[in-house]
Amino acid sequence: MTKKLYILNGPNLNLLGTREPEVYGRATLAEIETQTREHVKNHGLDLVFRQSNSEGQLVDWIQEARAQAACLVINAGAYTHTSVAILDALKTLEIPIIELHLSNPAARESFRTHSYVALAATGVIAGFGGHGYILAVDAAAGLIG
Amino acid sequence: MTKKLYILNGPNLNLLGTREPEVYGRATLAEIETQTREHVKNHGLDLVFRQSNSEGQLVDWIQEARAQAACLVINAGAYTHTSVAILDALKTLEIPIIELHLSNPAARESFRTHSYVALAATGVIAGFGGHGYILAVDAAAGLIG
Amino acid sequence: MTKKLYILNGPNLNLLGTREPEVYGRATLAEIETQTREHVKNHGLDLVFRQSNSEGQLVDWIQEARAQAACLVINAGAYTHTSVAILDALKTLEIPIIELHLSNPAARESFRTHSYVALAATGVIAGFGGHGYILAVDAAAGLIG
Amino acid sequence: MTKKLYILNGPNLNLLGTREPEVYGRATLAEIETQTREHVKNHGLDLVFRQSNSEGQLVDWIQEARAQAACLVINAGAYTHTSVAILDALKTLEIPIIELHLSNPAARESFRTHSYVALAATGVIAGFGGHGYILAVDAAAGLIG
Amino acid sequence: MTKKLYILNGPNLNLLGTREPEVYGRATLAEIETQTREHVKNHGLDLVFRQSNSEGQLVDWIQEARAQAACLVINAGAYTHTSVAILDALKTLEIPIIELHLSNPAARESFRTHSYVALAATGVIAGFGGHGYILAVDAAAGLIG
Amino acid sequence: MTKKLYILNGPNLNLLGTREPEVYGRATLAEIETQTREHVKNHGLDLVFRQSNSEGQLVDWIQEARAQAACLVINAGAYTHTSVAILDALKTLEIPIIELHLSNPAARESFRTHSYVALAATGVIAGFGGHGYILAVDAAAGLIG
Amino acid sequence: MTKKLYILNGPNLNLLGTREPEVYGRATLAEIETQTREHVKNHGLDLVFRQSNSEGQLVDWIQEARAQAACLVINAGAYTHTSVAILDALKTLEIPIIELHLSNPAARESFRTHSYVALAATGVIAGFGGHGYILAVDAAAGLIG
Amino acid sequence: MTKKLYILNGPNLNLLGTREPEVYGRATLAEIETQTREHVKNHGLDLVFRQSNSEGQLVDWIQEARAQAACLVINAGAYTHTSVAILDALKTLEIPIIELHLSNPAARESFRTHSYVALAATGVIAGFGGHGYILAVDAAAGLIG
Amino acid sequence: MTKKLYILNGPNLNLLGTREPEVYGRATLAEIETQTREHVKNHGLDLVFRQSNSEGQLVDWIQEARAQAACLVINAGAYTHTSVAILDALKTLEIPIIELHLSNPAARESFRTHSYVALAATGVIAGFGGHGYILAVDAAAGLIG
Amino acid sequence: MTKKLYILNGPNLNLLGTREPEVYGRATLAEIETQTREHVKNHGLDLVFRQSNSEGQLVDWIQEARAQAACLVINAGAYTHTSVAILDALKTLEIPIIELHLSNPAARESFRTHSYVALAATGVIAGFGGHGYILAVDAAAGLIG
Amino acid sequence: MTKKLYILNGPNLNLLGTREPEVYGRATLAEIETQTREHVKNHGLDLVFRQSNSEGQLVDWIQEARAQAACLVINAGAYTHTSVAILDALKTLEIPIIELHLSNPAARESFRTHSYVALAATGVIAGFGGHGYILAVDAAAGLIG
Amino acid sequence: MTKKLYILNGPNLNLLGTREPEVYGRATLAEIETQTREHVKNHGLDLVFRQSNSEGQLVDWIQEARAQAACLVINAGAYTHTSVAILDALKTLEIPIIELHLSNPAARESFRTHSYVALAATGVIAGFGGHGYILAVDAAAGLIG
Repeated sequence: MTKKLYILNGPNLNLLGTREPEVYGRATLAEIETQTREHVKNHGLDLVFRQSNSEGQLVDWIQEARAQAACLVINAGAYTHTSVAILDALKTLEIPIIELHLSNPAARESFRTHSYVALAATGVIAGFGGHGYILAVDAAAGLIG
Repeated sequence: MTKKLYILNGPNLNLLGTREPEVYGRATLAEIETQTREHVKNHGLDLVFRQSNSEGQLVDWIQEARAQAACLVINAGAYTHTSVAILDALKTLEIPIIELHLSNPAARESFRTHSYVALAATGVIAGFGGHGYILAVDAAAGLIG
Repeated sequence: MTKKLYILNGPNLNLLGTREPEVYGRATLAEIETQTREHVKNHGLDLVFRQSNSEGQLVDWIQEARAQAACLVINAGAYTHTSVAILDALKTLEIPIIELHLSNPAARESFRTHSYVALAATGVIAGFGGHGYILAVDAAAGLIG
Repeated sequence: MTKKLYILNGPNLNLLGTREPEVYGRATLAEIETQTREHVKNHGLDLVFRQSNSEGQLVDWIQEARAQAACLVINAGAYTHTSVAILDALKTLEIPIIELHLSNPAARESFRTHSYVALAATGVIAGFGGHGYILAVDAAAGLIG
Repeated sequence: MTKKLYILNGPNLNLLGTREPEVYGRATLAEIETQTREHVKNHGLDLVFRQSNSEGQLVDWIQEARAQAACLVINAGAYTHTSVAILDALKTLEIPIIELHLSNPAARESFRTHSYVALAATGVIAGFGGHGYILAVDAAAGLIG
Repeated sequence: MTKKLYILNGPNLNLLGTREPEVYGRATLAEIETQTREHVKNHGLDLVFRQSNSEGQLVDWIQEARAQAACLVINAGAYTHTSVAILDALKTLEIPIIELHLSNPAARESFRTHSYVALAATGVIAGFGGHGYILAVDAAAGLIG
Repeated sequence: MTKKLYILNGPNLNLLGTREPEVYGRATLAEIETQTREHVKNHGLDLVFRQSNSEGQLVDWIQEARAQAACLVINAGAYTHTSVAILDALKTLEIPIIELHLSNPAARESFRTHSYVALAATGVIAGFGGHGYILAVDAAAGLIG
Repeated sequence: MTKKLYILNGPNLNLLGTREPEVYGRATLAEIETQTREHVKNHGLDLVFRQSNSEGQLVDWIQEARAQAACLVINAGAYTHTSVAILDALKTLEIPIIELHLSNPAARESFRTHSYVALAATGVIAGFGGHGYILAVDAAAGLIG
Repeated sequence: MTKKLYILNGPNLNLLGTREPEVYGRATLAEIETQTREHVKNHGLDLVFRQSNSEGQLVDWIQEARAQAACLVINAGAYTHTSVAILDALKTLEIPIIELHLSNPAARESFRTHSYVALAATGVIAGFGGHGYILAVDAAAGLIG
Repeated sequence: MTKKLYILNGPNLNLLGTREPEVYGRATLAEIETQTREHVKNHGLDLVFRQSNSEGQLVDWIQEARAQAACLVINAGAYTHTSVAILDALKTLEIPIIELHLSNPAARESFRTHSYVALAATGVIAGFGGHGYILAVDAAAGLIG
Repeated sequence: MTKKLYILNGPNLNLLGTREPEVYGRATLAEIETQTREHVKNHGLDLVFRQSNSEGQLVDWIQEARAQAACLVINAGAYTHTSVAILDALKTLEIPIIELHLSNPAARESFRTHSYVALAATGVIAGFGGHGYILAVDAAAGLIG
Repeated sequence: MTKKLYILNGPNLNLLGTREPEVYGRATLAEIETQTREHVKNHGLDLVFRQSNSEGQLVDWIQEARAQAACLVINAGAYTHTSVAILDALKTLEIPIIELHLSNPAARESFRTHSYVALAATGVIAGFGGHGYILAVDAAAGLIG
């Protein structure tokens, strides 16, 4: 069976391309999904790609990934800094986890320098805009493979 | 087209009038909505008035306000102090934002003195109970006009 | 009318028995519910037993308990440490509240040592695994009776 | 006898209109006083409107207001953040107190986020520039009336 | 041989029933001991029940419990928050340890929110007044058995 | 020449007897001055007794005391907690300095637990209301003599 | 019956007169006791004067004072800064409590600026050496009388 | 017109030469003024040289300098560390500002290491005693010219 | 001319493969260099690959890269957390900078969670062991191209 | 007269050899005493070797050492981190003081990194298990001699 | 023999004139050296002027200055904020030390507000760009002479 | 083959005997080396004894010791408090490590109370001046043993 890669996106990432484009780039989340979907094929993986503004929904999807995914990539947006619930859900996984950010949090407000996701993540990729999704797929392939 | 004013209310504000009335007053949220709806007419504005206990729902509504509203008033309740997701959603707006509280947070527990909403707000009105909604409408009209 | 006891469970508790069993024990939440339901009969109480990953949903249920319950037991999981909204909802109750944890939070990460739930709780029971639900029922019966 | 409304202004507010106009607006304090004096008539109140750079002078005026005023509005400027003496004077009043700021302190340096005035204030209005004085008069009328 | 349950009480608990009864209840420590002694019989355990105002004495008794007890319940009173010596003594035990408090420390002064005892405790029971001793016996029986 | 004792009083102490009498007592500052003036005679000292709401005025008076006084008693009120200028002035004195408070600052807000005056004071008397002035005179006499 | 004044002294105060005399003075504790005993007669009070190096012993004596004393003076020495047990014992008293120190703690190491005793004390006298005992007797007489 | 250099001195600097001469030197402020007045002539500048113990007076003078001065040198003494009002006044100036101290604050108490003046200053000169005034004049000439 | 990619390695990275291999992997730095050198060819870049235990040497090389490199990748090892000098050198570059770590610092000691390098970095890649060098080359190619 | 060396041991050290032997070693305190007593003879010293769980007892013994000992070695166990009373007693000594620990506190919980004993100690020896007593005797001999 | 003035420059100062010229000015370090060398002649001093990126090299040079220099000026760049080794070397000097900065550190990142150099410096000159070297020479001449 | 003992000395230790001799003693590092070299012979060990002011050089030597030494003693001087690089190098060793200081850091500035070296050290010896090297050799012999 083809292995599945989960890529989950948190709050406000549905606004990508319109929100502070000088920080986050001009590509929409749909465009990023399309590019990522293309790239995933090179590695023979299936892609589950979702976005939600709801912390509880993200917890549900992470729990779903326990049974389904070979690797999970999560760009948890603002919940990165506040959600112990997402951290707890991530800690129940036995697959590699990649924390993804479009921009480099260290260059922003101080409350963005703490990451609960990082406490469960195998690796981190941050600051490469939409290209970070491609790098995350490659990193995931390396960790799975 | 008539300009729209969004007034969003966060968790537990549906209990207004019954919860600690000596702190929050005896008017219910429905009564406040009615008075506010009356007052808005004076300024020739349309009113969208909603309440939710869910952080994700509030983020969705703030995103909706981007295309719809001329001004947004938000009484984010407890999420004022914990939600970076709401802050991020507010920062995507290009309209004026008014932070509203029924009581004066400075006179309460220390964890209520920090406000994420304030980091995106144009102005703040706090401590005037239900009358604060009327003041917020006037302030909004001033900022829009 | 038979008095109702509400027992609410927060995020990731639906994974009980599969997640870090050396920390949380091997009983599933369904098994714990069954045992608790049995034990509640000894005290002549009705039981409402629920779980959700969503902070907003838990706030809704706590508000529901205002009119319905004689006592509320809450194992808020990760929201224990981050949710002012749940604290605010609990503070609207006039019935006794019992904070319940499977493990002893003091022996875990430092961000788990602070509890918003505790600020509204009558009592706390922690560290007894699934047996804690039985103790909580007894404690609730004592407080109600 | 006509009720009196005291509006006290702290250090550097005499420079209004010339100091960082992009932050504080272009209206001078004299112009704001004129508009406020007009607006106060609508509510049938007398207005006492003063400014001083001296902490001791402001304490004297607050003490004077104890016997004279029905409501006190204070824009304490920099003393907001440093003066326990003004706080103590305000706490001797039994009338409502409104804390007023031209800009939103939360969006400025961190030492401006703490307010001693707020510990004695009934309500807060901040971020609406010179229009804030009009809103404060309306709020005062609501609290007096 | 019958298994022994040690219940140790720290400073000022000898004043129970006379000191702030609205916080700690009206039962004296002697009355609580009597009830506990009754209840212990249900579980076929022997009870050692003691109180001291001296930190060193409590350390001695904890050391004695190493050879004697099947479970130790400790209401360390004020030493909960200051005694590393008691923590070190507790850590030498290989039996379950239950931390017991009459009231909920989270609702009191901030220096009472830190517990050294908790760092060695299996479980915690707090906030149920004298009834907490009964719950602790039940919890102990569960842990022993 | 008769030795002089300076007693200086800071901001809001002119309101004594009317401000929170349950905290500060019902005696006015004039009544306290009269009693103190009587008591000073027992020790054969002259009394200089003053009050000001102005930090700069208090600094001036402390400087004056350098040449004039055998001992200085200061109830600096709110400036106790904020004035490095008063501390610096006190440090230029070579006579004994007594810090005086009507109430016990440790039992009040946390920002009142730090005292700049204490860094220059020989001794402290606090919490005895108006009687504290009598005790301070006795203490001063002891230090002078 | 003659009213009793308790004066309790904490650890190392038995060394008075020999330990850092430039800080604590040259009078021994026995000499101070003698002078105090003389002075107490002026007020028609009985004196109980004791010293111990043991925290538990001091707690026992404070408890004894509940039934015996009209006022308690305590120079808790180092336990001032570390003993919650002494604080708890003091809080059970309904008589006035005077915190006494030979030197001014604010001028010493930072860990001496926090006082648990102060949280229960009516008043504080510090920095007057052995003379402080005489002042404390006068202050006690004022509070009793 | 000859350009004006303002040199403002804060609280307790009128005591120079008599206060802790081993720290601040033996020259009086009048002597320093004379030397500075001589030196200023070399640069063809007029000198305004003043001292006040009052924060409000210093704010007034800084406001006066807005229209009058080509450069402002300020030795704000203790207000360096506490006065946001002076900082705000300094920020309204568009001329260079030099912060001056007689001693090196880093070698003193920790509350002297924070400077509000520094947040508005172009440059800082500290630790050279009275000679610092000469260096400040040279630095000012460099910045003006 | 072929564009150059600089990859600089900080202290103790010369021990790779022998030091805590369960944390850092078993590949030596020489093996990683060989793989990276291969991979760089795919992007048509020249590679400069160096290691030093000396902070000053790393600063020199970063300065050299200003004139030579199209992109700089730096695994600063322990200097990540302590070197402001390296930060300052990085800030003089106008090319993209990638911060690289073998392991995820968030899962290690708290003093490793702060990164000075991150304050100047465009992006961060951490936690992928030796494979991180390959990902960094791809990320660099994306940023250059 | 032969000089005396005091070696005092604090709480729980009587359990040595049985408590966490992988941390503290397998030798009992009696065995260590025997070895130390042997070794002391080489230096021609008398040995006083004691242990107590009581803080007050340890203070008493330190006071006794003032008149008796040429050097004092103290392994204060948990009181190292909490006892200002022991610090105060040590500060009254005019002989050298050696702080001794079996393990290296820096490698343990953060509350063990602060030592009150260290503030009065001439030297520190930590981390060498029972052998540390031998090293301490040698160090003491060097300091005495 | 002519007295020597040492001026030492720390990391990245060799880039002066090219790095952020709006902050640090357009003069190169060579140009500043030339001007300084000219100016030093006025005071009849010899000049030793050096720069290094290496902390150890700077420590070596400071040690060399012990035997050679009459005064040392140090612009330690980034090591100002991190190097205890440089502080220790400076503390071995018995000559005056001047801390020099091109810009005013108080207006920059918070980690630049702490200076280890300041703990050993006689005086500080900051914020005057390249002109600061001239002022430092004058200040040095004053301190030497 | 004879086992080697490495003793490494950090910055400024080459100045021993001349720098603050009342703190560090009057023996030079060469004299200490000579005495240590004599003492090492008693234990049949070879001695490598070095000093450097350079952090990178010390890291190189620690790495060298991995292959060469049976035990490493390090007096890291100022780098004790700042160097994570030295900590990382020490952690790669599998031999015992002894942290050595001439004086007792607890009695000095607060930034000297944190030690990175301690996080990797087996044991600590501090406060015995040059004699500490002899004790360290004895301790090392015990650990190698």
